[in-house]
Amino acid sequence: MKIVVALGGNALLKRGEPMTADNQRANVRRAAAVLAELVAAGHSLVITHGNGPQVGLLALQVAASSDPPFPLDVLDAESAGMIGYVLQQELGNAIKDRLFAALLTQVKVDPHDPAFAAPTKPIGPVYDEATARRLAAERGWRIAPDNDKWRRVVASPKPLAIIEAEVLAFLVGRGVIVICAGGGGIPVVELADGSLAGIEAVIDKDFASSLLARQLDADLLLLLTDVDAVYADWGLASARPLANVQACDFVPGDFPAGSMRPKVEAAVEFVRASGKPAAIGKLEEAVKIVGGIRGTWIGPAV
Amino acid sequence: MKIVVALGGNALLKRGEPMTADNQRANVRRAAAVLAELVAAGHSLVITHGNGPQVGLLALQVAASSDPPFPLDVLDAESAGMIGYVLQQELGNAIKDRLFAALLTQVKVDPHDPAFAAPTKPIGPVYDEATARRLAAERGWRIAPDNDKWRRVVASPKPLAIIEAEVLAFLVGRGVIVICAGGGGIPVVELADGSLAGIEAVIDKDFASSLLARQLDADLLLLLTDVDAVYADWGLASARPLANVQACDFVPGDFPAGSMRPKVEAAVEFVRASGKPAAIGKLEEAVKIVGGIRGTWIGPAV
Repeated sequence: MKIVVALGGNALLKRGEPMTADNQRANVRRAAAVLAELVAAGHSLVITHGNGPQVGLLALQVAASSDPPFPLDVLDAESAGMIGYVLQQELGNAIKDRLFAALLTQVKVDPHDPAFAAPTKPIGPVYDEATARRLAAERGWRIAPDNDKWRRVVASPKPLAIIEAEVLAFLVGRGVIVICAGGGGIPVVELADGSLAGIEAVIDKDFASSLLARQLDADLLLLLTDVDAVYADWGLASARPLANVQACDFVPGDFPAGSMRPKVEAAVEFVRASGKPAAIGKLEEAVKIVGGIRGTWIGPAV
Repeated sequence: MKIVVALGGNALLKRGEPMTADNQRANVRRAAAVLAELVAAGHSLVITHGNGPQVGLLALQVAASSDPPFPLDVLDAESAGMIGYVLQQELGNAIKDRLFAALLTQVKVDPHDPAFAAPTKPIGPVYDEATARRLAAERGWRIAPDNDKWRRVVASPKPLAIIEAEVLAFLVGRGVIVICAGGGGIPVVELADGSLAGIEAVIDKDFASSLLARQLDADLLLLLTDVDAVYADWGLASARPLANVQACDFVPGDFPAGSMRPKVEAAVEFVRASGKPAAIGKLEEAVKIVGGIRGTWIGPAV
């Protein structure tokens, strides 16, 4: 199968773990071992990844230096360079006799997307409320609660088109294992003259992966995270993992914000548009998820 | 012709100009306009670029934050992300109806390369001597004079193999305009078990481009900078631009350090190995250089 695999930020950096180069590499290595199993099972992979902790760290590093801060589109590109390199290297070490390509990927968004007025995407570390409020006042950040802590939030517009899709399709067709749309891709807008310009945002990597899977005609969209399944009644005593969700029956209200609703929405978008399935689950169980015995499958009408 | 074009750090950021995102973009746009002329003239391009100012800035940003510093191979990858993205976007804006790919590129080096004991590659901003000495003591940097100022220097080992060459060749064969080996590529060493690991260094992008041109069987290696030609008697009253240098006659001693000797050496390596020519000159004159009426051509024996 041709599978677009999205590695969640939490699959690349465990919750609460400091964002060091060593921690990141250890987690990437763990992910590479899992992806190697999928390749060994005969699947062809297009791999995307999150960048929330990384792009937040880069933004902090820029703010701590005396230089004018680089815009978020440029920091997105830096994080894609950083993570893409380590992923490419660890995949190459885990999988022999295959070719790899890690590409910078521009993703078109709408400059009038409502997300620019109401930022929701958390980036960087968590803070206590007082620190978060002070940083917000000092640096003009928007902040929002994240469980019992606070975090900086930035605009996360919906992805509309993967600019480099044709090149990615060439590479996949040639049997190359592709790493792309890192951090959801680099957000760009189309100007009146048809040229592209970067815009300050961080695209959700699950929505970007859903779009990518449609543009590449994938057989499966696989969203990997650190939770084993989508849960009904998330946060309640009656919480239970769902083995299957029918895309045609999906109602966003069934999945509270803070649950995996964005992942389910991204999956449903792909399933409705393509008629192909999506699956959501835990990184370490990827092979079993693809085998149909773990995770949550989102399918077209039965 | 299939041309490997190397854009010098000074072609992407004018000497003395602050390393801001806006300055970088303005210079990249200027370079894209020149490269568009080469594409319009029917040439197929593989584009590389320097990263001296950028990777130095990233290292300063990391040092200014409270996190443990990321190693130079990771910062090389970040800089390739940053510059590759802007270059890809501005090229796409300048050249219509062509496909582009910006790839992260690992480049194998020898862990026993003498460069690791004697760092020479300047990165980051220039400092007065007292500041440079203070920073060197504080941060464990190696420093060296750079004209009348001082700069941090890091190891610059010789590139031995472009790991992703096969993928790059495939894309070039499909007519894709490729951006790769940014900052000379990401330095890696091969471990005893055949796996790759990053190593702290910054590879010279002219030597990496020379190797790339050999591995991709390029017809021309074009090294672009902010000086119009290689000069004989550089720094003397008798200084004069050279229209031609024969690779077979090349003696490094004819070109003092501080002149364009490393560029000439990188060019000579390509010419001797491939029997194809190289040319060195000013970014803005690229079309005239390729036309043979500007710059310095380094040719095989006549």
